This record gives sequence, C-alpha cells and structure tokens, in this order.
Amino acid sequence: MAGFNSIPVYEELVEAIQRLPNIGRRSAERIAYHIIESDEKEVDHLVRAIINAHDKIHKCEICGNYTDQKVCSICSDPSRDKSIICVVTRPRDIVAFEKSRVLRCRYHVLHGLLSPAEGIDPDMIDIRSLINRLKKGGIKEVIMATDPSVTGEATAMYISKLIKPMKIKVTRLGYGISVGSDLQYADEMTLSRSLEYRNEI
Amino acid sequence: MAGFNSIPVYEELVEAIQRLPNIGRRSAERIAYHIIESDEKEVDHLVRAIINAHDKIHKCEICGNYTDQKVCSICSDPSRDKSIICVVTRPRDIVAFEKSRVLRCRYHVLHGLLSPAEGIDPDMIDIRSLINRLKKGGIKEVIMATDPSVTGEATAMYISKLIKPMKIKVTRLGYGISVGSDLQYADEMTLSRSLEYRNEI
Repeated sequence: MAGFNSIPVYEELVEAIQRLPNIGRRSAERIAYHIIESDEKEVDHLVRAIINAHDKIHKCEICGNYTDQKVCSICSDPSRDKSIICVVTRPRDIVAFEKSRVLRCRYHVLHGLLSPAEGIDPDMIDIRSLINRLKKGGIKEVIMATDPSVTGEATAMYISKLIKPMKIKVTRLGYGISVGSDLQYADEMTLSRSLEYRNEI
Repeated sequence: MAGFNSIPVYEELVEAIQRLPNIGRRSAERIAYHIIESDEKEVDHLVRAIINAHDKIHKCEICGNYTDQKVCSICSDPSRDKSIICVVTRPRDIVAFEKSRVLRCRYHVLHGLLSPAEGIDPDMIDIRSLINRLKKGGIKEVIMATDPSVTGEATAMYISKLIKPMKIKVTRLGYGISVGSDLQYADEMTLSRSLEYRNEI
C-alpha cells in the first residue's frame, strides 16, 4: 500500500512496539504515531527511562528480587524475620505478597518455573542460590509460593524434595489460591488466606 | 511499600510508559518488567526504533502526510489525479482512504481540527498551506474528509467558506459515515460509500 505504512522506520517502530507484552498491531500503530508526534523532550524522556531502568535494575545478590542496589530493600531491612524464606516465581509476586502484609519475611525469586515441555530444567532457574542460602543456616521455614499451576506445583515439589534432607520445614501456600490462575494478579485477601492456611509438604 | 515499586528508575519507566496512548498502570508495569528482563540487544533495538522513527519521519512539504523523504510517496506518484485534494485530519486517515481504493487523488493533512473550546484556532492547523496549494491552480475539487464530529464539521465548513470564492468545487464526505465516530477506524465499505456519495457544500 502506498502511504504512511511504507516508511521503513515506521514499520520498524511498529514491529518493535508489537514485541512488548499485550500490544497488538493497532495499539502499536497508535503508540508509534504518538511517538512520532511527540516533541524531542518527551521522546528523550521515554528513551532515557527505558535505558536507565534496563541498565540500573538487576537482581539482588541475596534473593534475586529486582533492585538498583547490591542488595534489595527487603534483604537489607533489619526488621524482617530472617528465619522464613518465601520462594516466588518472579519479582512481581513479591509486590503482591508485600501488599497482603501477613508476612515480614525474606524472599527468594526463582525467575522461572521448571518446565520439561519448554526445556526449562533446574539449572535454568535460581534454585542453586536458594540451596546455598539454606546451607548457611538460620532458616526455619521455606514457603513455596510458586503459581498454583502445573509447572508451579512441579517446581514446588522438586525444590521441597531438595530441602527436606536439610531438616528445614517446607510449606506450600494453601487455602485461597485458585488452581490455574496467575499468582501475580491475585487479590490481597486471597493471598492473606493462602499464607494463613499454608501447609507443610 | 517496601519492594520493587520503590526503585526510582522503575517508577520513572512506568510513568513514561503510562503517558503512551491507551496504556494503564497495570499494562505499563507489564511492559516495564518486560523491558527490564529483555537482553541488551532487544532494548537497543527498541530504543533505536523510537529514535529513528522520531528523527526521520516528518511532514511531507506538499501535503503534510508523514514521510522520511522531502515529499511523500503519494505526492511524488505521477499516476495520481492532481486535480482533486482530499483534506484529512491526520496522516492515519490517509491510510484508511488508501485502503478503500476509490480515489487516486492527493491529500492534505490538517494535523488537527478547529476547536474554540480547546483554543485551537485556524493558525494552529495546516489550513494556510492548503490555501497556498489551491492558489497555484489546477485543482478542480477539494473533498473535505474531516471526522464526522462537531469539530470535524465545523472545520470543514470553515475551510469551505475560504475556498468557495476561489471557484473550486468543495465536497463533503456523504453517505456512510456515522456521526460521532472516529474516522480512522471506519471500515473500507463505509469509506467507499462516503466517497461515492460525496456532496457539494
């Protein structure tokens, strides 16, 4: 088609935007137009925000949560209960648990779930660093707070089998989490219940 | 809240993304996470696409359509009927008309609509450049293809009054466009009908 869509730099921008999560062709075109019509300052601001966040945010060297420091704000908080570690799939899940305000523990982020179908094996997620934390001692309980999905359950089971010989209590989120749902979007009440009724596995 | 949301560079990224059209807080957070988790190459690609599109795309010096050349692909197409100018609100509307394939004319992009309520007066949209094009001669008809909204109608009326003394036929999109709708999302059939049944105003 002759016209605007035949400009290569426009097509490249639309394609790059479409690679972002939940953005279809039409949304990508609206965003591309918006960017083209924005003034220099606004585009600079967006570009700098992208580069800054990508450059400065990395994994906390203790728990794997995202931080712009060496150690995240939760791991460096002295008021936290250091004897409990809540194991989550991704940093976003920590935000959900913090909102539920039931636990004042520390976390461990796996950055993925085991999935033989997708070729994701134990070396590809942060299990080893969790075991190393536990080996240092002082941990009484590990709460497996992975998603209530097939891969989430399988990952919780796999890790619990590794931890049990270490004589550390391993629990799994109970009551409240609905099977097959996406944990990061769970409401605060559901998460509160699931922490309250957690069960030893 | 202690945790990920308290990282300033993260908050800045989410806020910058939220300024894009039709992106809410939750979508902005998903996109921000995606960017943070992307590898260097992918982020570079996105940033370069944004900068390139913004730097290289500008208004065609004849019609105001977006182009990466001095003159857009439509204005430089010798097979086009140069005696008809279709006046549209924004470059996106040209794409919609090109899809309908009824006209092989040229366009003029106003880059906005008159709106006394929003303080947008005739000097703030590209009316003067349209009048200058018409003064050069050779134009038999101007089709006012602004949105079928209050501001779109008012703009069409305002411009038609400027053109009439020049003895050039001015028509308005007819049949088919539904009042209050957004022209850029009109289907091809509706646009075909509205071109076929256009009326002199």
